[in-house]
Parts: sequence; C-alpha cells; structure tokens
Amino acid sequence: MTNQKIPYKIYLEENEMPKQWYNLRADMKQKPEPLLNPETLQPVTLEELSGIFCAELAKQELNDTDAYIDIPEEIRKFYRMYRPSPLVRAYCLEEKLQTPAKIYYKFEGNNTSGSHKLNSAIAQAYYAKQQGLKGVTTETGAGQWGTALSMACSYFDLDCQVYMVKVSYEQKPFRREVMRTYGASVTPSPSETTNVGRAILKEHPGTTGSLGCAISEAVEKAVSTEGYRYVLGSVLNQVLLHQSVIGLETKTALDKYGIVPDMIIGCAGGGSNLGGLISPFMGEKIRGEKDYQIIAVEPASCPSLTRGKYAYDYCDTGRVCPLSKMYTLGSGFIPSANHAGGLRYHGMSSTLSKLYDDGLMEARSVEQTAVFEAATEFARIEGILPAPESSHAIRVAIDEALKCKETGEEKTIVFGLTGTGYFDMVAYEKFNNGEMSDYIPTDEDLKPGFDSLPKVNS
Amino acid sequence: MTNQKIPYKIYLEENEMPKQWYNLRADMKQKPEPLLNPETLQPVTLEELSGIFCAELAKQELNDTDAYIDIPEEIRKFYRMYRPSPLVRAYCLEEKLQTPAKIYYKFEGNNTSGSHKLNSAIAQAYYAKQQGLKGVTTETGAGQWGTALSMACSYFDLDCQVYMVKVSYEQKPFRREVMRTYGASVTPSPSETTNVGRAILKEHPGTTGSLGCAISEAVEKAVSTEGYRYVLGSVLNQVLLHQSVIGLETKTALDKYGIVPDMIIGCAGGGSNLGGLISPFMGEKIRGEKDYQIIAVEPASCPSLTRGKYAYDYCDTGRVCPLSKMYTLGSGFIPSANHAGGLRYHGMSSTLSKLYDDGLMEARSVEQTAVFEAATEFARIEGILPAPESSHAIRVAIDEALKCKETGEEKTIVFGLTGTGYFDMVAYEKFNNGEMSDYIPTDEDLKPGFDSLPKVNS
Repeated sequence: MTNQKIPYKIYLEENEMPKQWYNLRADMKQKPEPLLNPETLQPVTLEELSGIFCAELAKQELNDTDAYIDIPEEIRKFYRMYRPSPLVRAYCLEEKLQTPAKIYYKFEGNNTSGSHKLNSAIAQAYYAKQQGLKGVTTETGAGQWGTALSMACSYFDLDCQVYMVKVSYEQKPFRREVMRTYGASVTPSPSETTNVGRAILKEHPGTTGSLGCAISEAVEKAVSTEGYRYVLGSVLNQVLLHQSVIGLETKTALDKYGIVPDMIIGCAGGGSNLGGLISPFMGEKIRGEKDYQIIAVEPASCPSLTRGKYAYDYCDTGRVCPLSKMYTLGSGFIPSANHAGGLRYHGMSSTLSKLYDDGLMEARSVEQTAVFEAATEFARIEGILPAPESSHAIRVAIDEALKCKETGEEKTIVFGLTGTGYFDMVAYEKFNNGEMSDYIPTDEDLKPGFDSLPKVNS
Repeated sequence: MTNQKIPYKIYLEENEMPKQWYNLRADMKQKPEPLLNPETLQPVTLEELSGIFCAELAKQELNDTDAYIDIPEEIRKFYRMYRPSPLVRAYCLEEKLQTPAKIYYKFEGNNTSGSHKLNSAIAQAYYAKQQGLKGVTTETGAGQWGTALSMACSYFDLDCQVYMVKVSYEQKPFRREVMRTYGASVTPSPSETTNVGRAILKEHPGTTGSLGCAISEAVEKAVSTEGYRYVLGSVLNQVLLHQSVIGLETKTALDKYGIVPDMIIGCAGGGSNLGGLISPFMGEKIRGEKDYQIIAVEPASCPSLTRGKYAYDYCDTGRVCPLSKMYTLGSGFIPSANHAGGLRYHGMSSTLSKLYDDGLMEARSVEQTAVFEAATEFARIEGILPAPESSHAIRVAIDEALKCKETGEEKTIVFGLTGTGYFDMVAYEKFNNGEMSDYIPTDEDLKPGFDSLPKVNS
C-alpha cells in the first residue's frame, strides 16, 4: 500500500487495536538489573513488592519472560473511549520547514488527563479493583498523573488519594479542581496526615514541599491503611508495559500504509512514554529484524541519560522504594525549576537505562528556551498547543527535519506528542514575555547528587 | 449496515469529509427576516455590510438561495488537521443510566481552541487573507472564540487584535496566554485604543468592561484601520453556514451505519453550534423527507428562546451592528454571571429564531446547578470534562435518556458536545465546593431588556 495517499491522521479501527501489551524485557538479551530491597540489598521478592503495589502489578513488575500479556477486556473497553489515538502526518509542518523529511507524530493528548498517563492509570486502577482494594494513593507534581489516576479511579469507583506538592497545589488550582471533579481527594504535601509529613512540617514549617516528600507520604498512607496500595505513573516496568499500547498502535498504523520509520524520537523523564512508544520497534531492533535510530530527549537542566551515572539508586528522595539500577543524577540531585515538570526526575526507567547502556538508543539534551520556540512554532503550524514535556521531542524532530533539508535526505521521522499544554500557560506566559531562562548544571552542581548515590555501587 | 456493531467512535475517512457547506436558508420556505441598517431601518446592502465584514463573508451573510457553497481547498486542508471530529457512541453513559436509549455525541473539543469555534474562525480568516487584508479585530468574553480566531489568523499570517472583556482578561490569564502564543494581541476592554473605550473609561474609571463595549471597540478599530475588518464568532448566518460542517459530518457518520436519530439536542447561545449541527437534518425536515425532534437548550438565567420576544433588535449592546429579527431579551438585558459565558447572549441567530417561531424546533431552559451535575456525571463516566456551555445539552440528553428508561422507548439521541471545560475550572471549583447558585430572572427582571427594544417593532 506504499503508494497510497497518507491521510493527515491515521486512526485504527477498533478491531485493529492491541489486545495484548508487549513486554519488551522478554526480548532483551541483556535484561535490566533487578530491583533491590533497600534494607537487605537483595533482589526484591514478589511478596515484598506486593506490600506496596497491587499483587498483579507486582507480578508484571518482575515479569521479564512473557513477551505478550493480555489486556483485560474492561481496560480495553475504557481504551476504546479515548483510543486509538491518531498517528498524525505533519504535512503543514513539513511544508513550513521545506523539508524532504516525512514527519509523523503519535498524539496522546486527546483525553481529559491531557496525556498518555491515562494508559497506565486505568490499568493500575483495574488491578486494584480486581484485588478488592478500597483505593490507591499516589503523588503528583505538575498534575498530569494525578489527573489520569483520578479519572481511572472514578471509572472503577475506587477511592483516590493524591498527595500534591504544595507549591503546585497552590499554583495550579485548576489541575487540582479537575482531580476533585473526578472525585479524588487532593492533599497538599507535606501534610498533617502522615508521620513523615508531620515531621517535615515540624522541621521546615514554611516548606512548599517536594516530589520526594509527596511520594513518601503517599507510600506511608498506602502501607498503613487497610485496603490501599500505592501506584506510580512512570519509571516502573509495569508502566512501560501498559504504555506499549502507544507503540503497538503506532506500528500497526505505519504497517497499514507500508511506512518504515528511520528515526523515533520521544521525551524522557521517567521513561514511560518513550519506553511505550519504542517498544515494538526496539523489539525488532533487538531481534535483528530492522534497524531504527531511537532518540531520547531530556532537558539540559536534568540530564540523567546524557550526564548521569549508570548505578543503583533510590527511585524516590524519601528512600522508601526499592533500589533500581538506572542512569541517575542521584536522589540528592535537586532539579532546577524547569517548566517541564514531568521531566524533572533524577533517574530513568531501568529498562531504558539498560538499552541506552547497551548502545541501542541515543540521548540528547535540549535547553528550555529552544524547547518553547519549537513548541510555539508547532502550535502555530499544526494547531496543537503541546505540553512542555512533549515539546522536547518536537525540538529534536524539527532539528532532524532541518538537517534533512540540508542533506536532501527523505527520512521518515516519528515522534511522540505525549500531551497538551493547557495547564502550563504560566510557562508559556514566561516565554511570551521573553522572561524564560536556561540553566545547565555545572559538574560542581551535579556533585551533591552523585555523592548521594548509595554505597551498594562501590 | 444496521446490524453492524457500532464502534465507540465513528471517524469519517478524509474522502468522506464535506466538500461543501450546507446553507439551510436556501431550503427554508419561510426565510429569516433581513438584517436592517440601524440608521435607515432598511435592509442592509452588500456594500454596507462589506464595510464591516470581509466582502465574501458579507455575500455569504446575505445568500439565502444557494443550498451548497464550496469549501475552499485551503480551508479543507486546515479542517483535515483537526477534523473529522468523532461521533461518539456513549456506551458507558447508557450502561450507567440503564437506559434503552442509544446516545451519540458529536465531540468538537479535540482541538486547541477547545470548541467548534475553529470551524468558522478558519473560514473567516481565509476570506480576510484572500481579500488581501492585513488583519481582523474581534471581541471575546470567555475566550473560546478569541482563541479559535488567534489560531486561524496565525495559520494565515494575519494580524489578530482581540478585545477581551477586562474582567475576563484578568481572571482568565491562561486563555489570554494561549491567544498570545498564537501571536494575537489581546487588549483588555475598555481600553485607551478607541474613542468608545476612552469615553467609557472617562465615565466609569473603574469598570471591568462588558461584551457590548468590547464589540464596539473591535468594530471601531476595524472600520477605522486600513486593511482591517471585524469578525464575529456566532449569531450570523455566515457562521451557521461554516458550522454546517458539524451536522454534515454527523449525518454522513450516522448514514454510514444506518442510524436514524429521533432527537437532536444542542446548547444555544448565539446559535452557531446548534445551527450547524442540525442543518442537514432540519433540511430534511423542511423538505418533508424525515421528521426529527430538535431541541435547543439555554440557561434559565438567559432564556432568549423560552422567554424572549421575536422582534428586531440590536445584535450588540453598543448598537453599531445591523438590526436582526430574532428571539431576544433586549440588548439592554444584562445576563447574570452564569458560568456558561458562551450562552450569556441576549439574542439568537435569526435563522434559528425563524425555525423556532415556525414550530420546527423546541427550546428548553435549564438551571446551572443541574447542568454541572450532568457535567460531572458525564466527565466521570465518559472521561471528557465538558465545557459548561456543552453541558446544557448533556443535561437534556440525560433527562431524555432517563425518560426512555421509564417508558422503555429505544430512542436514538444525538447531542452536540461543543467543547471542553479545561479553562472553566473556576466554575467547577464553585460546584465542587457546593457554592454554585441558580438564578431565574423574574418578569420584572426581564422588563428593562424588553423596554430597550428598538422602536422599529412598533
């Protein structure tokens, strides 16, 4: 079907949507290193993990042998409400850039959570419901994950308790209200509802909170409340598994029209979007069936892949979760106030870290102002106002398309457009006013983070 | 194809998208009354209209003979970026309501303007560009129309000057920033940039503005600036024409699956969405080919159809635009601070007014709290957080589905979901906090408006 006219948007039919998630780890020759119990420093057991996470999700977390896992029918039903997401041919952008490159993006923003996070939220809520739990707890910074989880819990009549970093709670009242509209209870963190919250408030009475503290509160709340578990929106293997729906749909849509990408680009914070998008393509690459250039894009202000160390580290600054071997800046690294809240994470998915370490993918870091330039250009040409996180991928996609313009190469570029920026207008305002600044940490700035790496590495 | 399984979302193929708009007035046996020049009280001429509006749009405004008007290829190209919009089968809502009714909604919110307004904005910007204009002016209250127009002007490299009611400018900084991101200049109204603005500021130094004042400023700016025209997002015939794309897509999608609706429901402020949605169905009804129950839904606080008078009135409170015969509460009626800003309009499209007067459609008014109850229920079940305006249609659709539950009738209900509520979280917050109030004007409250009707009626 190669000569067929490619539509602006490729939507799969319902019967073409994936019925199984793809578990890339099963096909990896070199598996990611196992999670370690932070106390014993031994690989975590299913039983240990099941105290924090839902039992089925703990199983998925440890499963690196089954390549395909059935998507339960109830989740597929929910997926059908907002999926398939369109694979868009960026004809207008190509024309504007005058590039011979062919640009496609998989757009995950057409749902009320505004991002791909819903793909995993609904799965996690489903397994919590199946287990007979009363509810789940989580933390949220910028609010995308909290919103997605609220929607998912509302669908399954589960209680949803979100610890929202206090500064975001106050500065992003609209995000908070979306969560409340979906029935979630949203608590500014640190709070008086947990031991760790009370201790922090006592020590730092005026603190506006941090993601690390919010995670610790959410975990404490989950493990100390009958019928609750803790859920997380990125980094974990289970999350990448659920997000494989992005890549599987993308691949089916491309295959339908005989399109073979040369390059796949995605932003990477914890890695859930990128890991999901690339999974079936990386599977082919690992099995030697095809070759693709795969590029992770991260902010220059929080460069875990490009400047981090591949080491065991704490996933959370509260140091209550298992240790993961990953590219990390150290849990003691404090990211600057970059506006892409979803990319302000010190570490990276252990799966992606392993692939990167094995040379199967590349990484680039980009600066904030250049990212917002790309975001604004994209918004004006393609009509979609992108999230700051997603705009990291747009920046590199445009750069690569412009390289093609110089070389005359007709490369096919696919990138992940993870979400919309409707709740990020404070950042756009700064950019519109010419008040946005860039920050690249010096080696000196990175030192405290590296010093915080646990001793297990030495 | 009646027995075919109806998918959750029906997306047309690109080649099934409309190539022509449908001009319902051409098929109306009783035409709407003509616009009058506010000074001469004679029907406005094409020349007079062309001083305010783009020439081609003025022609469309007066055209009640051509049933089909070609959509220029450049507009169709833009449509392909965000259209077709999905016709969604509300399976989950049906299940939750336990109704035998079949519910469909045409969802126009999957674009950055967040509503159907973009359908007309891109058309109006196109004709302005074709005419060689430098730019356009408009007013915006809640901001949906201003956002859509900013996007359209940015696409065609046209200057876009938006007068935004000062209170909204200050209370909705995010809407303002979206417009600025698309390159529009946004001026809080009243402003020092026009005679009318300066006069009002002198008389009422602390005023936070009104839509009427913003319209007057935008019109003054357009007619006094070389190379500019004024554009409007609703009420006008030209706008209903462009919005027919909603109804045409809906009809094609239904026909494809052999679905015949019993009932079509839409919210009505100025009438652009409802007029567009119902147009091809109303055409069949007028031609006696089919019968449909068609329901306009308006806020009880601003009940132009259900409690207004069918009379000539000013379209704007500044009284600079032509007089239109319509259902109106009088340009002197000051709507209460209902949160559905898009429905706070004293009048109604002259086409819809005529159809209503001729008994071809019904109207209902609903109260704000009941509307937000429906909005929240819908958001939780169907996953989309609706705009307050759209939620008026949801309220009546749910009410009708519940009636079917009682009677056992398997009615097919189609309603227009015009947009998303992401920029309306202040309203949702009020509702979530139990602080939302209802307001139904007394006959006494309506009197000043009726007293303001022009003498031409007597």
